[in-house]
Amino acid sequence: MFRKFLTAAVAVSALLAGSAHAQDVKTAEALRDKALRDYLAWDITEDLTTNIGPRLVGSPNMEKAKDWAVAKFKALGFTNVRVEEFAKPSWTRGEESGWLMAPYAMNLNPVGLGRTQSTPAGGVEADVALFKTYNEMIAAPDGSLKGKIVVITQPMVRAQDGAGYGVAGISRRSGPVEAAKKGAVALLIRSISTSDSSVPHTGVTANGEGVVTIPAAAIGVPEAEQLERLAAAGKPLRIRLNLQSTFDPKDVAWNISSEIKGSEKPDEVIVIGGHLDSWDVGTGALDDATGVAITTAAAKLIGDLPKHPKRTIRVVMWGSEESGGSSEAYLAAHKDELPKIVLAGESDTGADRIYSLQLPAGAAEHPAMKAAVQTLTPLKIYLDRAPAAHGGADIGGLEASGVPVINLNQDASRYFDYHHTMDDTLNKVDPAQLAQNVAAWASFLYYVADSDIDFRALGATAPKAAH
Amino acid sequence: MFRKFLTAAVAVSALLAGSAHAQDVKTAEALRDKALRDYLAWDITEDLTTNIGPRLVGSPNMEKAKDWAVAKFKALGFTNVRVEEFAKPSWTRGEESGWLMAPYAMNLNPVGLGRTQSTPAGGVEADVALFKTYNEMIAAPDGSLKGKIVVITQPMVRAQDGAGYGVAGISRRSGPVEAAKKGAVALLIRSISTSDSSVPHTGVTANGEGVVTIPAAAIGVPEAEQLERLAAAGKPLRIRLNLQSTFDPKDVAWNISSEIKGSEKPDEVIVIGGHLDSWDVGTGALDDATGVAITTAAAKLIGDLPKHPKRTIRVVMWGSEESGGSSEAYLAAHKDELPKIVLAGESDTGADRIYSLQLPAGAAEHPAMKAAVQTLTPLKIYLDRAPAAHGGADIGGLEASGVPVINLNQDASRYFDYHHTMDDTLNKVDPAQLAQNVAAWASFLYYVADSDIDFRALGATAPKAAH
Repeated sequence: MFRKFLTAAVAVSALLAGSAHAQDVKTAEALRDKALRDYLAWDITEDLTTNIGPRLVGSPNMEKAKDWAVAKFKALGFTNVRVEEFAKPSWTRGEESGWLMAPYAMNLNPVGLGRTQSTPAGGVEADVALFKTYNEMIAAPDGSLKGKIVVITQPMVRAQDGAGYGVAGISRRSGPVEAAKKGAVALLIRSISTSDSSVPHTGVTANGEGVVTIPAAAIGVPEAEQLERLAAAGKPLRIRLNLQSTFDPKDVAWNISSEIKGSEKPDEVIVIGGHLDSWDVGTGALDDATGVAITTAAAKLIGDLPKHPKRTIRVVMWGSEESGGSSEAYLAAHKDELPKIVLAGESDTGADRIYSLQLPAGAAEHPAMKAAVQTLTPLKIYLDRAPAAHGGADIGGLEASGVPVINLNQDASRYFDYHHTMDDTLNKVDPAQLAQNVAAWASFLYYVADSDIDFRALGATAPKAAH
Repeated sequence: MFRKFLTAAVAVSALLAGSAHAQDVKTAEALRDKALRDYLAWDITEDLTTNIGPRLVGSPNMEKAKDWAVAKFKALGFTNVRVEEFAKPSWTRGEESGWLMAPYAMNLNPVGLGRTQSTPAGGVEADVALFKTYNEMIAAPDGSLKGKIVVITQPMVRAQDGAGYGVAGISRRSGPVEAAKKGAVALLIRSISTSDSSVPHTGVTANGEGVVTIPAAAIGVPEAEQLERLAAAGKPLRIRLNLQSTFDPKDVAWNISSEIKGSEKPDEVIVIGGHLDSWDVGTGALDDATGVAITTAAAKLIGDLPKHPKRTIRVVMWGSEESGGSSEAYLAAHKDELPKIVLAGESDTGADRIYSLQLPAGAAEHPAMKAAVQTLTPLKIYLDRAPAAHGGADIGGLEASGVPVINLNQDASRYFDYHHTMDDTLNKVDPAQLAQNVAAWASFLYYVADSDIDFRALGATAPKAAH
């Protein structure tokens, strides 16, 4: 398979010699092909998930992860290592249990949603109101759910671009607040998952100052389907749920960054990265040790070149994606630098193959980007002509402030089988697919970093996309 | 796909008209093709797993399952319904937890092995001695594990015939007793599973009067691999384990049976079935609601014929396979009847396709069995010429007492992804594969039941198998 790429590289070099700087094409292709057999991203992923483990904001492990990040950047020869602290109230999971009590006893094995309220000590027991969709719950009359434990069993659709997540995820994000309005005492949702597994996902739910909400947890897919069948048969259901957790309003988190310094225009910066924090269940392998590993390994390959590209590549390991806050903190700390951030991108959908590239509006016809697309073609990546948007949660602040973004879209077909669960672990990472990600990032970044391409200017004159 | 079978049926009928009773071939083929589009086995599986749920020996659910079985047999028109009670001390799982304490805190999410000892109240915490194989643990010097929690991370091999289970399962069956001899205070094993899941399996371990053992649990595959990597890096591991459970020495269980009465030789009996009990995790869908469903549905299809076959078909829903005891109890209750039990068979490896048939020694050349093999061929089942042995745990007593047995071997490639875990649930059952099982059992049983074939006599004169 590697031999095939080497052959393709020669052909592409010849083809593009006239349309982009021939030396850049050769260098980008060489980076790509080297990355395909490079194990740095795997080693970073294994190291972080094994030796640090789960990395919930506020946990001792997250503090160790910060120190790990600094040491890793230094060991790899990156420069300008920075640790940017910001305030982030933390949440810590305590004792949790949930049982079906009627029509018979069955362990529901719930996992509390991230940052959920606790139940009263010892738990809450109540009759169940079950809804097959979120919208059916929303349509329930006010007060009709008084004293009930609400169960929402809406399933999630498997989709290559992960589109099913946003649709189903509303039960998690807004369900507890909406069910509270109707008088419910607790909420259980079917895990926002594409798997058929009993391992439930977690993930942040709305909570905090001024939010009226109720304790909420997810249950596995078979458990949700079991409750659905029992309810359909007209059996009255009763559930006992105990969720204990604690908040620390004074906690902090950190965005950690480091650079491959540009050789000619070091003040022009490309910001890339993944997030260092994870949920407390699993070891945050796909979410997002691999994103950290992919972007770090790609930048390291570029840093190892005899001559750095013109612009600076900055890798950020964001410190609070899951619980929120990295993006706002990064924007606040870098407001003055915004005009010099030429592009931003994030890797945060696991480690399966990248299948498409989305560029900032108006950029597709630029010679450097045409060359980049050609270089990505043997990796089975196509140019999606819809302009990039929603480049990632951690660069959301930059993006909203006008920084151009790209998407290197990862195949999410399998991602939501494991995402935010105890099963987000190293054994779900495929080394060959991981390497394909590094190959794409390294070669693409090199084109941007060694060019004078001004995405803002191209965007300003671009016709509105027909897409 | 169904049309294809109907066409094949005509051809096979013509071919076999000379070698077996032509009417039997037609009837067996019709049973087979009807079964392929019959939903009774699915309905039984769904009913048992949903409306009864988990069925641990000694639990209220198991008693409900007994009543369910009696009602199900009666509703389906079976005759001679019998409930045979036997003594079976029961075990009930209580509170369980397990955490990695050093080098960092991580939830290990253990599941206690079936019938394990409890830890002292509040749990036990100790340094870890990790072994990558069972044999390495056995080779450890006596006393060298004093005060340790032993972890065995031996993996299980995926195999169509399930052969990996016996090899890896010794850690579960004998590990706690062997580790106890070396001074260990508790044992954790890598789940005896072919999956990559964090959901651990349970399953019975040696315990009881005169057995010196220690508390033991399984952990998921990623957790075991994580401990293995940490140990390989030389990190001292420390684990806290709490397993609480109770025994009731005076409990009972039941084998429940019923019959399709033979039309000419009703005292000659074919005994088939699956086991009604399950572990308390999951809902015992693949293990073994489907075995109960497959054999019941196959017998029901035969019972619905205008004329019953000559011999009696008896379906037994065994009452304590997982915890042991059904087989011995059945043998004790039916000792006098043994010479009249012409054949026994059990379905207890999930619900994926049957891929081979094994007959009693010397039976392959009998015209009725040649016809049976032909009828199974379109179902993608071949005759394995190795004589059937180990027909199933519940018929082990009959088999040891000389009752001929058959195997209709199910594809176990996927079975041990779910077996004995919280994920053994209805959504793992494939209705089309389930129906293929019923088709095989119904057509095969019909040939035996309507024949005079004497497996004992054929076996007595059979040459020793070259296989």
